[in-house]
Amino acid sequence: MYNQYMKRVMELATQGWGKTRPNPLVGAVIEKNGKILAEGYHAGYGLDHAEVDALKQINYEADGATLYVNLEPCSHYGKTPPCVEAIIKSKIKTVIVGMTDPNPLVAGRGIEILRENGIEVISGVMENESQRLNEIFIKYITTNRPFCILKTAMTLDGKIATASGASKWITGEVSREYVHHIRNRVAGIMVGISTIMKDNPQLNTRLLNSEVNQPIRIIVDSSCKLPLTSNVVTTAKEQPTLVATTIKAPPEKIEKLQKMGVEFLVLPEENGRVDLKELMVQLGKMKVDSVLLEGGGTLNYSALESGIVDKVMTFVAPKILGGDTAITPVEGAGKDKIEDAFVLKNLSVHRFNQDIMIEGYIEGKD
Amino acid sequence: MYNQYMKRVMELATQGWGKTRPNPLVGAVIEKNGKILAEGYHAGYGLDHAEVDALKQINYEADGATLYVNLEPCSHYGKTPPCVEAIIKSKIKTVIVGMTDPNPLVAGRGIEILRENGIEVISGVMENESQRLNEIFIKYITTNRPFCILKTAMTLDGKIATASGASKWITGEVSREYVHHIRNRVAGIMVGISTIMKDNPQLNTRLLNSEVNQPIRIIVDSSCKLPLTSNVVTTAKEQPTLVATTIKAPPEKIEKLQKMGVEFLVLPEENGRVDLKELMVQLGKMKVDSVLLEGGGTLNYSALESGIVDKVMTFVAPKILGGDTAITPVEGAGKDKIEDAFVLKNLSVHRFNQDIMIEGYIEGKD
Repeated sequence: MYNQYMKRVMELATQGWGKTRPNPLVGAVIEKNGKILAEGYHAGYGLDHAEVDALKQINYEADGATLYVNLEPCSHYGKTPPCVEAIIKSKIKTVIVGMTDPNPLVAGRGIEILRENGIEVISGVMENESQRLNEIFIKYITTNRPFCILKTAMTLDGKIATASGASKWITGEVSREYVHHIRNRVAGIMVGISTIMKDNPQLNTRLLNSEVNQPIRIIVDSSCKLPLTSNVVTTAKEQPTLVATTIKAPPEKIEKLQKMGVEFLVLPEENGRVDLKELMVQLGKMKVDSVLLEGGGTLNYSALESGIVDKVMTFVAPKILGGDTAITPVEGAGKDKIEDAFVLKNLSVHRFNQDIMIEGYIEGKD
Repeated sequence: MYNQYMKRVMELATQGWGKTRPNPLVGAVIEKNGKILAEGYHAGYGLDHAEVDALKQINYEADGATLYVNLEPCSHYGKTPPCVEAIIKSKIKTVIVGMTDPNPLVAGRGIEILRENGIEVISGVMENESQRLNEIFIKYITTNRPFCILKTAMTLDGKIATASGASKWITGEVSREYVHHIRNRVAGIMVGISTIMKDNPQLNTRLLNSEVNQPIRIIVDSSCKLPLTSNVVTTAKEQPTLVATTIKAPPEKIEKLQKMGVEFLVLPEENGRVDLKELMVQLGKMKVDSVLLEGGGTLNYSALESGIVDKVMTFVAPKILGGDTAITPVEGAGKDKIEDAFVLKNLSVHRFNQDIMIEGYIEGKD
């Protein structure tokens, strides 16, 4: 019986996609006797929290009503006064909560205060869905490192390009548009230098919608081979562009690129490559809460090996290319034993027109 | 309103899986005033047709009843008298048909005769499902060549083995058991000689069920390298084993293998390999109506290139192995352009525990 309202809460919450960072996505519904009195959501960092957004619309007059919210209401003074205060003041009778605050320092505090004030609280309604909705927030708030999504696109025979290197396009338009929606939701897009060399991509968000979020472009390039003429460099003043490199990078090259607007992180090496774990720590410090990793195969394998990947999204196009030299989504040295494979759990399968998208979470990463 | 009975008809029909060859799978339901009077199915070649199987149970007394059957009733004397005769005799009032007979020589004749005898006939109810159910029969009866299913199993990054060659097991138990069900339904299993060399497989049907069908094993081996000690050879007297070879095969080797029970087809070459199109023609003549092609990558690509593949079944395990030298399901030279890829249509996606199975039909093959 709570689920119908909680589903609406989630819908409302998603309106904040890409705008609330580093805050969570939160929606709120105020209901009384089966009638929705008000709806709200957190529309962006620094703006009203969802509960307050909803309560304001009814002048904090919610005597005897039920509040549905996907995340435990906050109890601390941040950018805005605590939500629990507004809830108590409004005479809400019952609060239905999706999940408790993932921040261990405050988890349960909001619920406790509500209960102390005579409000009935039911927590854990659609908890899995609530956790999935805020997977980025949960990871970032608890580890201070970005949630990393490995995205690949391949044919039904595991190829990301033909044997001669053609890769436009493996997947259909609908899949590709969805990737732009994901880019719009994350703080950063990460690729290896070989992807820049091969495809010279723009790595931006292209959506017909006007309000797009341009994620920071992160290029893993241990020797700083990044061409001055590449698309990411020539547009570095419009869209943040960061090169993750090592001391192998020639200082004069770094200087030239910096003048063109490219930022740098000089990181320790790990087997001759950029230490990706350390890169995540540094990105976390820069308030990058999420990274979409878009290949190629060598970087993808290093990322998996270094343990930074949280989620995998694989688009499979119903095409077969063949080719014993055609490249696959994850390359590198590879595992020797099947038992050592990276395993995905909590799988879900989606259709994007003719394409199939398989999504899951790396096992052993909770 | 017809669909509930037609679904039951399909269920009944599938009880003949692997046993009716080269006849189709047919089920029948006789219904009157919402009550099922009798059910039947074609249980095996030479046995009663589904309509007769059902009518017999009610002594051909079906005055005013409706007969549901997934395939147009036959009108010719074959192993059994024509079904239309039994239907007319039983005073069936209405016949609901899934699909017309795919045999162009008799298509529509059965329906015509029923109508001439005052029976109302509605055809094309759940037609797509009916066609899919009898995809093997339709292909074989119209072309005299086997329906060929390419089956592969890979990781989420397109690997069928680790870089060091380990392949046990990519997919889970439930997927592997389903493959044995498919083996149980087809007339033949086909592999390339390299699969024999690498895995020394048994290529038999292993199901706890006692009544299993052991398909003929077809080994594509242009130079006849098949080891005398391989599992398929040592069991050739128990399960039919056929080597498709060319004149490159040493006659004394053929002779030795023949003595051990192995059969031979010496076929023309196509680019130095066995001409697979001709192999299908010969298999059709041998009454092999269906072939499950189980790799490896080189044979899979040749099969696709030669146009013999009708259907593709790809199991995807939610694992990532990595490895730039690990092999993929379809190898060979490969296509140069994405536009030239083999495209699958009428896709469906199935779950086998943790694995995902994507099934489709090669475009341009109707």
